[in-house]
Amino acid sequence: MSQRPRHAPDPARRRETSRRAILTAAFELAGEVGYSGLSIEGIAARAGVGKQTIYRWWPSKGAVLLDALMLALQGEAPQENAAPQDDAALPDTGDLRADLKTVLRATVAELNDPRFDGPLRALAVEMLNDPLLAARYAEHIEKPMRRMKTARLHSAQRAGELPQDADLGLAVELLWGTLRAAWLERHRPLTPAYADLIVDTVLDGLRAGARR
Amino acid sequence: MSQRPRHAPDPARRRETSRRAILTAAFELAGEVGYSGLSIEGIAARAGVGKQTIYRWWPSKGAVLLDALMLALQGEAPQENAAPQDDAALPDTGDLRADLKTVLRATVAELNDPRFDGPLRALAVEMLNDPLLAARYAEHIEKPMRRMKTARLHSAQRAGELPQDADLGLAVELLWGTLRAAWLERHRPLTPAYADLIVDTVLDGLRAGARR
Repeated sequence: MSQRPRHAPDPARRRETSRRAILTAAFELAGEVGYSGLSIEGIAARAGVGKQTIYRWWPSKGAVLLDALMLALQGEAPQENAAPQDDAALPDTGDLRADLKTVLRATVAELNDPRFDGPLRALAVEMLNDPLLAARYAEHIEKPMRRMKTARLHSAQRAGELPQDADLGLAVELLWGTLRAAWLERHRPLTPAYADLIVDTVLDGLRAGARR
Repeated sequence: MSQRPRHAPDPARRRETSRRAILTAAFELAGEVGYSGLSIEGIAARAGVGKQTIYRWWPSKGAVLLDALMLALQGEAPQENAAPQDDAALPDTGDLRADLKTVLRATVAELNDPRFDGPLRALAVEMLNDPLLAARYAEHIEKPMRRMKTARLHSAQRAGELPQDADLGLAVELLWGTLRAAWLERHRPLTPAYADLIVDTVLDGLRAGARR
């Protein structure tokens, strides 16, 4: 541990303070001016840091926004090379249907939150254009999330709530992919009732598979 | 009807020839250089027309590409103000499950076709950035397609293959939304077996709804 006296400037703490100021500025600005209006200059000015500080830590404004969203959504942005949180899990009360409705309703609330809708949409578009950003998203968000979702479904399978041969990848894609497509392409307003209907229909379909 | 002699130049036919040359050039170039490399200049040069001819008929390169894709996919691009083809319909053999598998397998084949994958992906991205292009796509492609899908499901409902209270909008989103999301976000390779699995799971889920 460092023996640095408490009153001396601590470079690690200063770095962390700058990092959070940059991510907070990026998140706020994305909501205010949209992705196309977002710039490294603007983020630097709002955060009170130099542009070079941002370029040293992130390869693109998309990468800054990705970390900003992770900080806002999870209360914690990834450190470089940090492992995904191993203790994160979806709720498991022993009732898969109820737990999935809880989770999908929370996703609906998040996607309907005006603070998140703009930045998340901007990021979704930018990822389609930027394979490196998409890979970073996959690594830090999508894969850990998919593992959590699959783990919850696997637990239901062990408990006999889903057939042994159910395709859990398909289950994830039907449950969350449908919700995400409805949001991204604005098929219909996202409501808790829509989340429930997706869960009921997909679970019934997966359970019927055993009888097919 | 025009009494114009057959040997005189016909402006309407000349316009149609130019229009097809432009759309063919746009489709070929999108496959060769991608959306970001596509330009009105490049399309004009390949088609042998002036840039102004293109700007007179289309508001953006995205709009040209949209019509180019419609020409390539359907063998017919929309005329301005043309009504969607009223006689277009999904197959209806009286077996919803078989018909949906036929349709989703055809969609899989189309999305896997290297001639279409690049331009379709480019268009998907551009629509998320360009609300006018998205509206044009919705008007000329998505809404007519959704009507055809809903009509086929409604026919199955009348035939007793689906419950009377099934949410046909949800059915469309689960069937095609899942396939589209899997393609757009590259969740997994699209195969005929995946198309079949989606159809089986979603239909079983919708039919179980009557017993819930």
